[in-house]
Amino acid sequence: MTKTKTVYFGAGWFTDKQNKAYKDAMAALKENPTIDFDHCYVPLQNQYKDIRVDLHPEYLHDIEWADATYHGDLVGIKSSDVMLGVYIPEEEDVGLGMELGYALSQGKYILLVIPDEDYGKKINLMSWGVCDNAIKMSELKDFDFNKPRYAFYDGAVY
Amino acid sequence: MTKTKTVYFGAGWFTDKQNKAYKDAMAALKENPTIDFDHCYVPLQNQYKDIRVDLHPEYLHDIEWADATYHGDLVGIKSSDVMLGVYIPEEEDVGLGMELGYALSQGKYILLVIPDEDYGKKINLMSWGVCDNAIKMSELKDFDFNKPRYAFYDGAVY
Amino acid sequence: MTKTKTVYFGAGWFTDKQNKAYKDAMAALKENPTIDFDHCYVPLQNQYKDIRVDLHPEYLHDIEWADATYHGDLVGIKSSDVMLGVYIPEEEDVGLGMELGYALSQGKYILLVIPDEDYGKKINLMSWGVCDNAIKMSELKDFDFNKPRYAFYDGAVY
Amino acid sequence: MTKTKTVYFGAGWFTDKQNKAYKDAMAALKENPTIDFDHCYVPLQNQYKDIRVDLHPEYLHDIEWADATYHGDLVGIKSSDVMLGVYIPEEEDVGLGMELGYALSQGKYILLVIPDEDYGKKINLMSWGVCDNAIKMSELKDFDFNKPRYAFYDGAVY
Amino acid sequence: MTKTKTVYFGAGWFTDKQNKAYKDAMAALKENPTIDFDHCYVPLQNQYKDIRVDLHPEYLHDIEWADATYHGDLVGIKSSDVMLGVYIPEEEDVGLGMELGYALSQGKYILLVIPDEDYGKKINLMSWGVCDNAIKMSELKDFDFNKPRYAFYDGAVY
Amino acid sequence: MTKTKTVYFGAGWFTDKQNKAYKDAMAALKENPTIDFDHCYVPLQNQYKDIRVDLHPEYLHDIEWADATYHGDLVGIKSSDVMLGVYIPEEEDVGLGMELGYALSQGKYILLVIPDEDYGKKINLMSWGVCDNAIKMSELKDFDFNKPRYAFYDGAVY
Repeated sequence: MTKTKTVYFGAGWFTDKQNKAYKDAMAALKENPTIDFDHCYVPLQNQYKDIRVDLHPEYLHDIEWADATYHGDLVGIKSSDVMLGVYIPEEEDVGLGMELGYALSQGKYILLVIPDEDYGKKINLMSWGVCDNAIKMSELKDFDFNKPRYAFYDGAVY
Repeated sequence: MTKTKTVYFGAGWFTDKQNKAYKDAMAALKENPTIDFDHCYVPLQNQYKDIRVDLHPEYLHDIEWADATYHGDLVGIKSSDVMLGVYIPEEEDVGLGMELGYALSQGKYILLVIPDEDYGKKINLMSWGVCDNAIKMSELKDFDFNKPRYAFYDGAVY
Repeated sequence: MTKTKTVYFGAGWFTDKQNKAYKDAMAALKENPTIDFDHCYVPLQNQYKDIRVDLHPEYLHDIEWADATYHGDLVGIKSSDVMLGVYIPEEEDVGLGMELGYALSQGKYILLVIPDEDYGKKINLMSWGVCDNAIKMSELKDFDFNKPRYAFYDGAVY
Repeated sequence: MTKTKTVYFGAGWFTDKQNKAYKDAMAALKENPTIDFDHCYVPLQNQYKDIRVDLHPEYLHDIEWADATYHGDLVGIKSSDVMLGVYIPEEEDVGLGMELGYALSQGKYILLVIPDEDYGKKINLMSWGVCDNAIKMSELKDFDFNKPRYAFYDGAVY
Repeated sequence: MTKTKTVYFGAGWFTDKQNKAYKDAMAALKENPTIDFDHCYVPLQNQYKDIRVDLHPEYLHDIEWADATYHGDLVGIKSSDVMLGVYIPEEEDVGLGMELGYALSQGKYILLVIPDEDYGKKINLMSWGVCDNAIKMSELKDFDFNKPRYAFYDGAVY
Repeated sequence: MTKTKTVYFGAGWFTDKQNKAYKDAMAALKENPTIDFDHCYVPLQNQYKDIRVDLHPEYLHDIEWADATYHGDLVGIKSSDVMLGVYIPEEEDVGLGMELGYALSQGKYILLVIPDEDYGKKINLMSWGVCDNAIKMSELKDFDFNKPRYAFYDGAVY
């Protein structure tokens, strides 16, 4: 029986490009035989009391909501095997950046997944340095999560 | 004699707004009697071999340059007393995000400084959670770095 | 096949109430299908050379015994998936407190389990803050250790 | 000029014995020439919005108060040089236990101070193991915080 | 079905004695039913671009090769369950030493395996302290990696 | 007034070459105006109960001695500002290796100092990767410990 791993699914949902990458990455993980899809942590499905602040802006100033959602995501990172960042070079995201830094501190394997058409474009130096590997979206479904290895991003850094 | 502390100066230099905030924050630190300005770490002044990749795009693919600059910044964070993030709500930056996450892992006090006119605007949930305090630019020159305390950002989070 | 997780079994054995909670929690774990009971770490079963200092007070000053038992427990925490604290509000324990703090540093999911009749009573602020979730004893046998999530203790803090 | 260090002042204030030890330890620190007393972190003086929950029990269920006070104390530990625990063997405290575990993760020197009349009495194994040294109250005013060293507690452990 | 664990295989390949111990340890792991041999990380099989610097001395000054191989090994340690050190008392190795220190920071169970004929000989104090257990080569094939426990090296330290 | 920093003095004392480097490094630190020499931690001066095991081989099997000396050195690393490794390429030492790994986990600036005549010789890959900078012995007396920066070893790695 193949062993399976869990990932923290770090990805944005604010632009069309992000939404497409989000769906593509989810589909690839579902297909990947080394992934335990049911037990992966997806932040959008774990907001406090199932309240999405983008739909309920009255929670923008709610400390309890913010605090619980923030800690929920940290729990997601520390209790998953891998930190996955769906990464769009021209739409970089400060929240994903912070998650990558936290994942480093928790000893997680950090994998960036970049849409094929964007692969090679320049990315931020700190994202470049913190990741253990950066692959194309089309490679995700076959990535062997039981053999996490180190490689450089085959693209530019700024 | 007043004790002084050092900061890692996390700030962007890519837009007009960032450049203004950058200069304002530097001026405030210089004025602050609890800051050892000469020994603060300023990333822009510490790029590998003094090569700025924004001016020398031929280094965009240079692994040695990237690696040394990345590690230089990590050294800056771990060997400073405080992680300072000059934070502009509508121009959030993935690199600063990663630095904040790394600073958390190194046990640094994390302070966000936001231009007065932007203070209160919504910021990313992970930045909200990782910082120990978030103040206005005009408060920076008088902030007592010998009394680092915890407080919530008095603004919105998304 | 259901995946299973291991826990470090943090619990006291010094009072009647503790002994009852200890047995209840052990029984619940045994029943829980997401727990690998045989490979959980139970401190009381792992004291150095099988010497229980409560029964052999001549070891109260034995540095070798103390050091090995202390490190044994740290190994138990770092090599288990989850830090479980059987927590009795009115009989709080400094040793469990320290284990909770260490578990935080090792990136473990931290779960407090409180006897149903004590659930809601006030607990120490630091225990409140360090745990990722706090549940009732009666919920333990059905808790899904493959879906560790964050929630606030539904009770008081002092 | 003598260098000075800051401590996080970990101590209870719930019993007469604790209150006496609290005052004795504060007095000794004030006298100690290697301590920067003004910049030490004293939890009781740093509760959120200056609200003491023992005097204002209506805050027992206030998540914002609890969360801010909890994180305030963590900031106190990570931004002080030393973790000081005023430790009373027969009145051990779960909150101090958790602080000791967190201090371990932040790389702090951990010093227990025990009232002279209680020194030697048995203490919890985890407190025994986590501290770097354990001294008598009467030794605190002369302890050289610029020469933090390791030693075993000269007493019993259970 | 028996659970299996992965190890980072820390071992030298520079002397006859090291090569023999290397082969013996690999054979024992292969036989051990609690080991997932295929997913263990073996540094010698993971040098950057499959270039062995001992065979290709022209890479002795290549920063890209060094950096990638170094980080590859760190990834191997952080993404394996256990840090295994094949340890030869009279041929101690600084690289293994650093790996042991890093494994400590990543919360790994640290196991030293010493050839039977060398077991008991004096080892360096820091290796003595950092390991969670030290066993004989002949015990490796039966070691239960699902029950990692703490014990002292039954030999000398200097 | 110049700020001063403390170092953990990692160095061997087992061969003539080590002893010479030891003395040279101590002399350079004493001369360096950015060093607080009196508060640096020198392991050889901090062995438990002032017992040197090389002179008293009857302590080779003494767990209390070993444990206290080991933890004493860890305290020395975590409570100093900088990890200094006096490093001799052809006489590498497993104990120093472990100290370097531990220093990484404690967020210390890691500086290797290599005798001038050995500078450039090949060093172990893990030492190469873990250090933040590697300088010549003759540069130590003028090294600015208030400006710790990152640089690659200007020599070979194996």
